[in-house]
Amino acid sequence: MEEKTILDGQKVSKDVKENLKERVLKLSAQGVTPCLATILVGDDPSSATYVRMKGNACEKLGILSKRIHLDASISTETLIETIQDLNNDKNVHGILLQHPVPAHIDERKAFEAIDIEKDVDGVTSLGYGQTALGFGVYPSCTPAAIMEIIDFYDIPVEGKNAVVVGRSPILGKPVSALLLNRNATVTTCHSKTKDLSEHLSKADIVVAAVGKPNFIQGSWLKEGAVVLDAGYNPGNIGDAHYDSCYEKASAITPVPGGVGPVTISMLLKHTVASAEKTVQ
Amino acid sequence: MEEKTILDGQKVSKDVKENLKERVLKLSAQGVTPCLATILVGDDPSSATYVRMKGNACEKLGILSKRIHLDASISTETLIETIQDLNNDKNVHGILLQHPVPAHIDERKAFEAIDIEKDVDGVTSLGYGQTALGFGVYPSCTPAAIMEIIDFYDIPVEGKNAVVVGRSPILGKPVSALLLNRNATVTTCHSKTKDLSEHLSKADIVVAAVGKPNFIQGSWLKEGAVVLDAGYNPGNIGDAHYDSCYEKASAITPVPGGVGPVTISMLLKHTVASAEKTVQ
Repeated sequence: MEEKTILDGQKVSKDVKENLKERVLKLSAQGVTPCLATILVGDDPSSATYVRMKGNACEKLGILSKRIHLDASISTETLIETIQDLNNDKNVHGILLQHPVPAHIDERKAFEAIDIEKDVDGVTSLGYGQTALGFGVYPSCTPAAIMEIIDFYDIPVEGKNAVVVGRSPILGKPVSALLLNRNATVTTCHSKTKDLSEHLSKADIVVAAVGKPNFIQGSWLKEGAVVLDAGYNPGNIGDAHYDSCYEKASAITPVPGGVGPVTISMLLKHTVASAEKTVQ
Repeated sequence: MEEKTILDGQKVSKDVKENLKERVLKLSAQGVTPCLATILVGDDPSSATYVRMKGNACEKLGILSKRIHLDASISTETLIETIQDLNNDKNVHGILLQHPVPAHIDERKAFEAIDIEKDVDGVTSLGYGQTALGFGVYPSCTPAAIMEIIDFYDIPVEGKNAVVVGRSPILGKPVSALLLNRNATVTTCHSKTKDLSEHLSKADIVVAAVGKPNFIQGSWLKEGAVVLDAGYNPGNIGDAHYDSCYEKASAITPVPGGVGPVTISMLLKHTVASAEKTVQ
């Protein structure tokens, strides 16, 4: 049997955090405590959990977590005012607005209000554009995590066929852009794609970012493909059918313990990088 | 022999201009003359020709052409000040900085200085990001022209395999984004792509945007492909080898007379749209 690599997100994440710890200490010696502001609107339990996880991850590393919890009934305008206050707060280095916000709020407008310098979660169209054109500073965290895993495990990208399944603004689109900028030939597939398995059968690198549990089948893959599963469906289930994909792949991220933990580390990394800019 | 469609850019362009003429008259009745400012830096003869062509196309339609010619020796800062003056000029509705600028100037920084409201040439990263995320107002003109031709000739896009050869910030990347947003499955190829012909052999829609004369061979294409050639190489030669591609394709843009004339019309269209916003 061939050797398989389980792409261990916990390990990558630990490595990233070790590096960040030193940088936080150095900042501290210069009198700066990195600070991430998180905004939660309403009481969706999973959103609350995500925000809490992110806040806790910050604090464990010595990053200040400024947690703002707004009532579900607030208006887009009030949310934007809150964001603008954070934009103007010199002690805040990163702003995260937890997705999704209640339906009556214009989420896109709220995202766009985040200052590019503090858009550590990579949600603004300006941040997306800069990333896609090759000079972005804080790409969306899940795409950044995928690239971090690729780099940690020295997975070759240049000249490879990469197929991204999904085209959301914070996942499928930016990860397609990042892979393209690293010289992969990138195909972006989605719900309207005909014959997805045909595309996947040519892919050296597969990014699953579609939000459908166990959707990608091993039988669709090329022998030896690298599978990066950014899916995170209820019950800790990925977008790739793990067992069958594991059989075909040369390397694969598990769910949980793959892309997820690294995503949070990217948020921390971006927040620290933003804080570092204030002392340079 | 099968029927072939020559995708006639002159015809598409004429149609667009007819529509714009009425809109310019309407604006005029409201006391507004649309105005495009063009900035030419230095004396590159082809750049000078392009700028002149664009200016003349404006005037023919009743759009004011404000032509600014700067010395090749100016600094990035001076260029940016010029752009900012135009940003602040209420009578200017669109700003075009002719690419390329002399090597000592930071062209990207200059592009980024253009106000999004006046970025009718679609060169800013913010404009690119908005376009890619699906709410851009002025995509780059050549990608917009390609979509205009597709729409004029009712070429189906949804669910089709589109292969874009090239990944420049104002052509390959944005046209990939526009096709993806129209529900094509999009593969972006480039100089590091291995086996381009394999990708092209699956493509229903091919966009040639690579800047190499006669590069795309008909033998690489799928029978019945639609070929949109955005190449414009010295001697009026496209990126697709016309005769062999014509044989294979169901529809093809010639060079000259294909994408080129529509590109200029898109610039005019964006400028008029920007002027219309000032009276709404």
